[in-house]
Amino acid sequence: MTAGRRLRDIIAREGLAHAMAAHNPLSARLAERAGFHAIWASGFELSAAYGVPDASLLSMTQHLDMTRAIAERVALPVVADIDTGYGNAINVMHVVAAYGRAGVGAVVMEDKLFPKDTSLLAGGRQELVRLEEFQGKVAAACAARPDPDLVVIARTEALIAGAGLDEALARAHAYVAAGADLILVHSKQKTPAEVMDFAARWDGSRPIALVPTAYPELTEAAMKATGKIGLVIYGNHAIRAAVTAMQEVFAQIRRDGGIAQADRRIVSVEDIFELQDVPAMKAAEKTFLR
Amino acid sequence: MTAGRRLRDIIAREGLAHAMAAHNPLSARLAERAGFHAIWASGFELSAAYGVPDASLLSMTQHLDMTRAIAERVALPVVADIDTGYGNAINVMHVVAAYGRAGVGAVVMEDKLFPKDTSLLAGGRQELVRLEEFQGKVAAACAARPDPDLVVIARTEALIAGAGLDEALARAHAYVAAGADLILVHSKQKTPAEVMDFAARWDGSRPIALVPTAYPELTEAAMKATGKIGLVIYGNHAIRAAVTAMQEVFAQIRRDGGIAQADRRIVSVEDIFELQDVPAMKAAEKTFLR
Amino acid sequence: MTAGRRLRDIIAREGLAHAMAAHNPLSARLAERAGFHAIWASGFELSAAYGVPDASLLSMTQHLDMTRAIAERVALPVVADIDTGYGNAINVMHVVAAYGRAGVGAVVMEDKLFPKDTSLLAGGRQELVRLEEFQGKVAAACAARPDPDLVVIARTEALIAGAGLDEALARAHAYVAAGADLILVHSKQKTPAEVMDFAARWDGSRPIALVPTAYPELTEAAMKATGKIGLVIYGNHAIRAAVTAMQEVFAQIRRDGGIAQADRRIVSVEDIFELQDVPAMKAAEKTFLR
Amino acid sequence: MTAGRRLRDIIAREGLAHAMAAHNPLSARLAERAGFHAIWASGFELSAAYGVPDASLLSMTQHLDMTRAIAERVALPVVADIDTGYGNAINVMHVVAAYGRAGVGAVVMEDKLFPKDTSLLAGGRQELVRLEEFQGKVAAACAARPDPDLVVIARTEALIAGAGLDEALARAHAYVAAGADLILVHSKQKTPAEVMDFAARWDGSRPIALVPTAYPELTEAAMKATGKIGLVIYGNHAIRAAVTAMQEVFAQIRRDGGIAQADRRIVSVEDIFELQDVPAMKAAEKTFLR
Repeated sequence: MTAGRRLRDIIAREGLAHAMAAHNPLSARLAERAGFHAIWASGFELSAAYGVPDASLLSMTQHLDMTRAIAERVALPVVADIDTGYGNAINVMHVVAAYGRAGVGAVVMEDKLFPKDTSLLAGGRQELVRLEEFQGKVAAACAARPDPDLVVIARTEALIAGAGLDEALARAHAYVAAGADLILVHSKQKTPAEVMDFAARWDGSRPIALVPTAYPELTEAAMKATGKIGLVIYGNHAIRAAVTAMQEVFAQIRRDGGIAQADRRIVSVEDIFELQDVPAMKAAEKTFLR
Repeated sequence: MTAGRRLRDIIAREGLAHAMAAHNPLSARLAERAGFHAIWASGFELSAAYGVPDASLLSMTQHLDMTRAIAERVALPVVADIDTGYGNAINVMHVVAAYGRAGVGAVVMEDKLFPKDTSLLAGGRQELVRLEEFQGKVAAACAARPDPDLVVIARTEALIAGAGLDEALARAHAYVAAGADLILVHSKQKTPAEVMDFAARWDGSRPIALVPTAYPELTEAAMKATGKIGLVIYGNHAIRAAVTAMQEVFAQIRRDGGIAQADRRIVSVEDIFELQDVPAMKAAEKTFLR
Repeated sequence: MTAGRRLRDIIAREGLAHAMAAHNPLSARLAERAGFHAIWASGFELSAAYGVPDASLLSMTQHLDMTRAIAERVALPVVADIDTGYGNAINVMHVVAAYGRAGVGAVVMEDKLFPKDTSLLAGGRQELVRLEEFQGKVAAACAARPDPDLVVIARTEALIAGAGLDEALARAHAYVAAGADLILVHSKQKTPAEVMDFAARWDGSRPIALVPTAYPELTEAAMKATGKIGLVIYGNHAIRAAVTAMQEVFAQIRRDGGIAQADRRIVSVEDIFELQDVPAMKAAEKTFLR
Repeated sequence: MTAGRRLRDIIAREGLAHAMAAHNPLSARLAERAGFHAIWASGFELSAAYGVPDASLLSMTQHLDMTRAIAERVALPVVADIDTGYGNAINVMHVVAAYGRAGVGAVVMEDKLFPKDTSLLAGGRQELVRLEEFQGKVAAACAARPDPDLVVIARTEALIAGAGLDEALARAHAYVAAGADLILVHSKQKTPAEVMDFAARWDGSRPIALVPTAYPELTEAAMKATGKIGLVIYGNHAIRAAVTAMQEVFAQIRRDGGIAQADRRIVSVEDIFELQDVPAMKAAEKTFLR
C-alpha cells in the first residue's frame, strides 16, 4: 500500500490525522514512536537545521534528499513541504514526480511568489501568485504524481497576506476545482478565530489542514469537533525542542568544565544505538558476515 | 587565517581546546554560542541523525556535505571525523584534499579496518590495520592536505581493540613519526585510568586528544593538569540532548492532544529566526531588494 | 512491472540481453534510442566523467545519485555497478536496498577487496575476498532487495586475479548457491578464449554475463550460440566515444579560432533540445501555465 | 592566486579569453588540454546531461556540486553559469558565496525572470526583470563574493527578449554602475550584426562577453579586433560533440552486433586511464601503500 493510500486511510479512519515536523530521519523516528500519524518534512525545520532563513535558500535537492532519507526510515506517511513548488507549473511537475518517487504520501504547495519568506515572520514579504496561475500548478501537481493516491495539498496564504477570508475561501474552492485533495489554510493571528471562521464557512468538499503554530491552544479535540479539519501539522516543535535542550546542555558543560552533570540529564549512548537499529544490524551480522 | 592555523593557535594559547559534537550547522552554531573552541563533525552523530548505525554506512559525500555546511556557518575551526579514511592511503589523499577544500581545521583518522564498527559498542568488531599501513595513511593525509596547517590527528583504537597500553604507545609514536600532529587515544574503560596512564607514559612530542564519553567524570581541569592533553572532544552530547528533548516534547503533545503545554517549555519560533540569521537577511533586503 | 522483472523478461525472450554503459541520463537516453536492451550504470564511466581513477574514490552517494537520475529518464532497466558493495555484507544490505528503491533492475557486485582497482589496469591490485565472505554478501544482497525480481549479479574476478578457471568456476557455483541470479565472469585476456572456456565448462544453472572490453571481436551472435550467456555489457564505449569527439572538436576550434567549421560536424542545438524533451515541456506549458 | 585573479590576468594579457563549455570534470580536462583559457560550467550542458530542459529544473545544488567537481580537477578558472541567481538578491548572496567557496573565477547572472527558459529556444518565454531589481542582484553578488577578484558578469537578455539595442545598452550601463565586471550580451540573430552593433556603441568601460552559438562564423580574430570583447564562451560544443559521437558509435554497435568495428574509431581504455590520472595514483601507491 503506497504512502498516499495510507495517509488517506488514516484521515478516513481517524477523522483528524496529526503530523509532527522532522528535520532528519532521527526526529521522524522519534515522532513515529511517540504515536504521531504522519511526518511533516518541514522546509522551516530543515532551513533552521542548516542555519539559514526559510526563504527559498535551501535547494530542492537538499530538501528532497532529506525527505527521501526520512521516508526510508519510518513506516509513517511523509507529508512533504515543497514551498511554492520551486518555480512555475513545469517545475512543479518535475518536483512532484521526484517527491513521489522518493516515497512521500503527500505534498503541500503554497500560493506565494518565489522566493518565499517565512509565513510567521513579522514584516515578511507575503505576496500571492495569481489564482489562475496557482490552479495551473495544482493541476500540474496532480498530473505529475506517479501514484494517483499521492495527496496534493494546496496551501493558501491569503490570510497571511492579509487578503481576507473571502479571498481565502475563493482560492480554496478554486484549488479544489483544480484537483487539490486538501486545503491548508494558514494564519498568523494569535487565536484560532480566523481559521475556525474559515472552517465554519468551508463547504467541506475536501478536508482542511491546519498548522497551529500561532494559536497553540487549539486542541485536536476542537479541530475534530468541526468535522471539517482532516490534518493538523505541528510545524516546528522538533527543532525547537532540540534547540532548547542543546542550549541547556552545552551551557552546563561549559559551566562545569566537563560532562559529568550533563550526562545525567540526557539519554545514554546505548539509547542512541537502539534508535540507530544497531540490534538489527548485529543480528544481520550473525547471518551474513562469514 | 586558515581554520587549521586557528585551531593550532587555540591549543597553543589555551593548553586544552574543547570541541563539541554537531550533526548539522544549527547544533554547531549553538556550540559556538555556548563558548566551545571547536566543532566536532561527528560521524556518530550524523549516522544517528540519519537513523543508521555508525558502521561506515553513510557515504563520504553525506558526511562531507554536512561538514562543509557546518564549516560555512560557524567561525570556529571544524574537526572532521573521517573514520578510517574511506579506504586505503589513496582514498585518504582524495578524502583529506576534499575536507581541506571544505574548510575544516583538522581531520581525525582511526586505525581500524574498514568498514568500522562504533568504538563504544559492546561486542562490536574492533580490528586494527597493520601499523605500517596506517603510517602510510597518515603520511598520505599530510601530503594531501591543501593547507600545511590543517591538523592531522591520528586516532589509535589499540585500547578499544584490547591490544594494551604498550601497543597504543607504540602506534602513537609510529604515527607521530609518519607526520601526525596530535594523537587521539580512545578507551571504553568506565574510568579515565587507562587514558591517564597513557598520558603519563606519553613523551609529549605531540598533544593528546581524548573523547571522554565512557568516563564523563574526567574534567577539563584534570586534563589540563597533565600538560599533555591538548584537545577534548565531546562526541555525542548534541544528539543525545536533542533526542532527550524531542522524546519528552513529542510525548507531551500526544498526551495533551495539542501543543499548548509543550510550547511553554521550548524556545520560541522567533528564537529560531534569530539562529537562522533572519535579522541579517532583513537588513540585506533593505539594501539589495529594489 | 518492475525493472527487475523487465530485465528478466528480456533475457528470457532474447536469450542475450545487451547493455550499454552510461555516465549520465543523456548517454543512457542515446543508448535507449539506439536499441540497447539495458543501461549499465558504470562505475568506470562515472569515475572517468569525474576525472578520477576507478578505484573506490567516488562515493556510493555520487554513483547512486547518478544511477537514480538515469533510471528516471529511461524506460530500459538499469544494471547498477556497485563495485565491491561498499564494504561488508551489512553495507551491501544498505546499498542494495538503496539501489532497489532508486529503481534499478539489477546490481552487479564483484568479489574483490575494497578499495578495488580497475580490472583492466596492467599492474593493478587485484585481490579477491574469501569465497565464504562473498557468499555472505550475495546472500545479504538477495535478502535486502526491496523487489524479489531485482537481479543480483555476482561478478567473479578470479580470472583477473590470476586464480584460474577452476577457481572461477568454484566461485561461480558458490555464488549461485548463495542466491546469485547471474554470474559475471571477467577476463583481461586479449581473446575470448578464457571466458568461452568458462562458458563451455559452466553448468548453465544461471546465465553468464560478460564485459568484452579486452576481446572486442566476440560478437553477440557467438555469445548467443553458447546458449549460456544471457547478458553482455559494453562497459566503456559511451565515455570513449564522447572523449574522442570532444578531443577532435576542441582541437578544431582552437585551430580555427572559432566554431564555424566545428559546428558543421556536430549535432545542432535543436537536436539537444529534443533529447531534453523540450517539446513535451512546451506542450505541458500550454496546459498548465495560466 | 585565486581563480578570479587568474581570469582577470588572462583577459588583461590576451585581450580575449576563450572558454569552453563543460558538463563534467572530464570534458573540462579535455578543454584544458586543448588550450582553452577557461571553463564554462554551463547550465545548458548540465541540463542536457541530465536529459531535462534548461528551464530552472536542475537545482542549485546539482549545478554547484558539478561546478565544484570541475574546479577541483582543472587548473583553469571556471566561469559559473548561475542562471537568474536562483531567486532574488538574497538568494544571489547565498549562491555567489557558495560558488565562490567552490573556487570559481567568475559567475554569470542573467536578467530574466525565474524560472527561465533557454535563450535560443524558438517561442521560448523570455521575460526580463526590472532593471532596478537586477541592479540590486548585481550589487548583492559583488557584496557577497568571498574573493574581491571573483568576476561578476551581468548577462542581459534584452536582445533575446526583443527589447532592442537601446534597452540592452541602458541595462549594460546600469549593471556596470551596480558593480558588474563584464557585460554578457546574448542574441539569437543568425548573424553577429546585432552584437557587433552593441560592441560598436558600447563605451568600453568594461569588457563584453559573447556566446556566439547562433552566429558561429564570428571568429576570435574579429572579436579581438573590436578591442571591446574580453570573453567568448562556446556554450554547448562539448555536449554536442559527445552526443554526435555516442549516437554514431551506439548505432554502429547495434548494426554490427558487437564492438569490434566501433572500438577502432574511439580512444582506448588506456587513454581514459591517463585522463583519470591513473599514473599519478600508481606513483602515490608506491609511496603510501605499505
